[in-house]
Amino acid sequence: MITVREAIDIVLNHTNRKAPEKVAIADAVGRVLAEDVISDMDMPPFHRSMMDGYAVRSEDVASAPAALRVVGFIPAGSFPGFSLSAGETAKIMTGAPLPEGADAVREVEKTGPGRDDTEVRILEAVRAGQNVVPAASEVSRGDVVLTSGTYLSPAAISILAATGHTHIKIYSAPRVAVLATGDELVEPSVVPMQGQIRNSNSSSLQAHCRALGLECDLLGIAKDDKMALKQRIQRGLSYDVLLITGGVSMGDLDFVDDVFRELGLRILFQKVAIKPGKPTVFALHENRPVFGLPGNPVSGATVFEVIVRPALRKMMGYPTWQNQIVRARLTSMFRNKSNRENYHPSVTWYEEGRFFCRPLDTRGSGDVASYAHCNSYLICPQDQKEVGKGTEIDVLLRDDYYMT
Amino acid sequence: MITVREAIDIVLNHTNRKAPEKVAIADAVGRVLAEDVISDMDMPPFHRSMMDGYAVRSEDVASAPAALRVVGFIPAGSFPGFSLSAGETAKIMTGAPLPEGADAVREVEKTGPGRDDTEVRILEAVRAGQNVVPAASEVSRGDVVLTSGTYLSPAAISILAATGHTHIKIYSAPRVAVLATGDELVEPSVVPMQGQIRNSNSSSLQAHCRALGLECDLLGIAKDDKMALKQRIQRGLSYDVLLITGGVSMGDLDFVDDVFRELGLRILFQKVAIKPGKPTVFALHENRPVFGLPGNPVSGATVFEVIVRPALRKMMGYPTWQNQIVRARLTSMFRNKSNRENYHPSVTWYEEGRFFCRPLDTRGSGDVASYAHCNSYLICPQDQKEVGKGTEIDVLLRDDYYMT
Repeated sequence: MITVREAIDIVLNHTNRKAPEKVAIADAVGRVLAEDVISDMDMPPFHRSMMDGYAVRSEDVASAPAALRVVGFIPAGSFPGFSLSAGETAKIMTGAPLPEGADAVREVEKTGPGRDDTEVRILEAVRAGQNVVPAASEVSRGDVVLTSGTYLSPAAISILAATGHTHIKIYSAPRVAVLATGDELVEPSVVPMQGQIRNSNSSSLQAHCRALGLECDLLGIAKDDKMALKQRIQRGLSYDVLLITGGVSMGDLDFVDDVFRELGLRILFQKVAIKPGKPTVFALHENRPVFGLPGNPVSGATVFEVIVRPALRKMMGYPTWQNQIVRARLTSMFRNKSNRENYHPSVTWYEEGRFFCRPLDTRGSGDVASYAHCNSYLICPQDQKEVGKGTEIDVLLRDDYYMT
Repeated sequence: MITVREAIDIVLNHTNRKAPEKVAIADAVGRVLAEDVISDMDMPPFHRSMMDGYAVRSEDVASAPAALRVVGFIPAGSFPGFSLSAGETAKIMTGAPLPEGADAVREVEKTGPGRDDTEVRILEAVRAGQNVVPAASEVSRGDVVLTSGTYLSPAAISILAATGHTHIKIYSAPRVAVLATGDELVEPSVVPMQGQIRNSNSSSLQAHCRALGLECDLLGIAKDDKMALKQRIQRGLSYDVLLITGGVSMGDLDFVDDVFRELGLRILFQKVAIKPGKPTVFALHENRPVFGLPGNPVSGATVFEVIVRPALRKMMGYPTWQNQIVRARLTSMFRNKSNRENYHPSVTWYEEGRFFCRPLDTRGSGDVASYAHCNSYLICPQDQKEVGKGTEIDVLLRDDYYMT
């Protein structure tokens, strides 16, 4: 049986970035840039005033106070058609270009009225360059301002707009589908009869995909009937990623494995030393990943978070596809009842400089009600049977952990 | 001038949760529940087998091996119409209900063939309750499984589906609009002429809203003309939240302030001791927040992150609306050139149990190119002029910091 680390490596080795597509920048936030972005202009494009005040020749105001003749007014958005000669100044607004000859700005608060309307008194001396952002000091025309592969945070969108890139190439999102299997399952809208339970797997996995910014189609519930299953899976194989829940353990009616082989899928692993989620299948269909996840809703979601999500992130082009793992102090003792690496649903928070982790009290790995409150998983190593209260341990944080 | 903390408090004191709306659970991930969710069933609804194997009366197999007569087969999704008498067993699949009389399951791997097809040998003794999840042990019918105000992580969606809630009430999303002001601005699609720059504020703030899961309409660029500005602002006042960029400083052409008063907006503050972003206005229009943000793109985005985002989160009903702040070790010295609380764009990462923070090297507060790479802001207190390399300091993390 392979380890979790090995499983993740195998999966990542067999998933590739999707092709780029061009989108409006409004749709690019949270995605990954698939081209170098070049500036078509200097930034700032001119010597820019950082203040509302007076543009000056610093040599005229090396000592203060100094009276200067006001020869113009430069609002933001205009361009001065004049230059300053000795003893001259121009009123200037924040963001406006300095006139020829000027090399500094004195803010209006440090000026006073002159003898008449054409004069201003500069009350404090000015150094060359003061309150001015020099032309091209941030970016030169032709500079690469963002490189291909950059994660597009909201902050990154700003430079795209500033350099005129209203549409850019990003890595496409994989199209994901979920197929649930199991005769005991009914749709969430149905009231279960005796022996039945609602299919929560599909909604849960769809939610996980949406949290990544991915759409995810639900292909319904396949009954434990080989032909029906085969047909449904075949439909699912048109997607970039197919997630199948249930039907992957050793029982008599679990023939996903058979069906996989009949459909020509190459199975890369069928068991992972993870608790919960041991019976996890990873296969390829024409180089597109197919995951067989455990039917237990908590197990299925856990395997999604630990193994599938890094693959989806890699397909989306993310520079960081690994899950976020931090060291946290356990607030109560934890027992690992398996001989596998144990990912136990937990609540983790940050307080006074460190993370704390409280293992959720669950009634077994199917306890969806308890699981609903987790924002993280403590990771108990395979060979460790017990982790004491107060011990520091690795914890896998969900990206939105902070909201819980 | 009020402090950043005071500004946030004033804003939060004047923003309220939006009314609830009913949505499909597929659209609820990342949002906040606006009703208590009650289970319509016991979970599990029956004594559920955790294994593929044999349902037994534990008293029959207190010692092993023991031969039992196989009287039935219970696949998942069926309900056994029989009960077990002494010496009897039934084959059972994972997730299936135990028959009357049975109180434990022995997994198939620990059984062997009997003398004929009607017999099985249990190879290892079984305790009562073993490999069984008792009915209602996780949830009883009528239990509240999620309370109003819960953040709906992907994990929480699972219990909604399991309890038959395909549509639920969540707090509505505020409708946000951005109006840019400034004669120097042109749309990002336009090549700026001399003295002009592209409006990156609107795209940037829209991206910030989208990262929160909010739609955000762009109302274009208002020129520095009082009538035009008034008309545009009036249009923006139909939104739940209006963000206006530019026109909020002390310059001659900055009359947003005037216009606010003429439109009957109640101004709650006009200046905050924050760098960048001092000239930040907060006003109310019929109890709906209107923010006047600095026109400098970096300043505007910073104020959005520090002051506006908590308000939007509160309107969305989030239990946690504060920004995530962690302690991080500075990897290079930082100088606070202002006498205000300084939020400096930084790159923060987690490594070997602690956060590290690298202040970005910027060419002034308008350096959008440098800002594009930030995932966080170091927070330098007002009265601190310098923070040494290696010092621990508060850092405001963007939610997606980990992706950068």
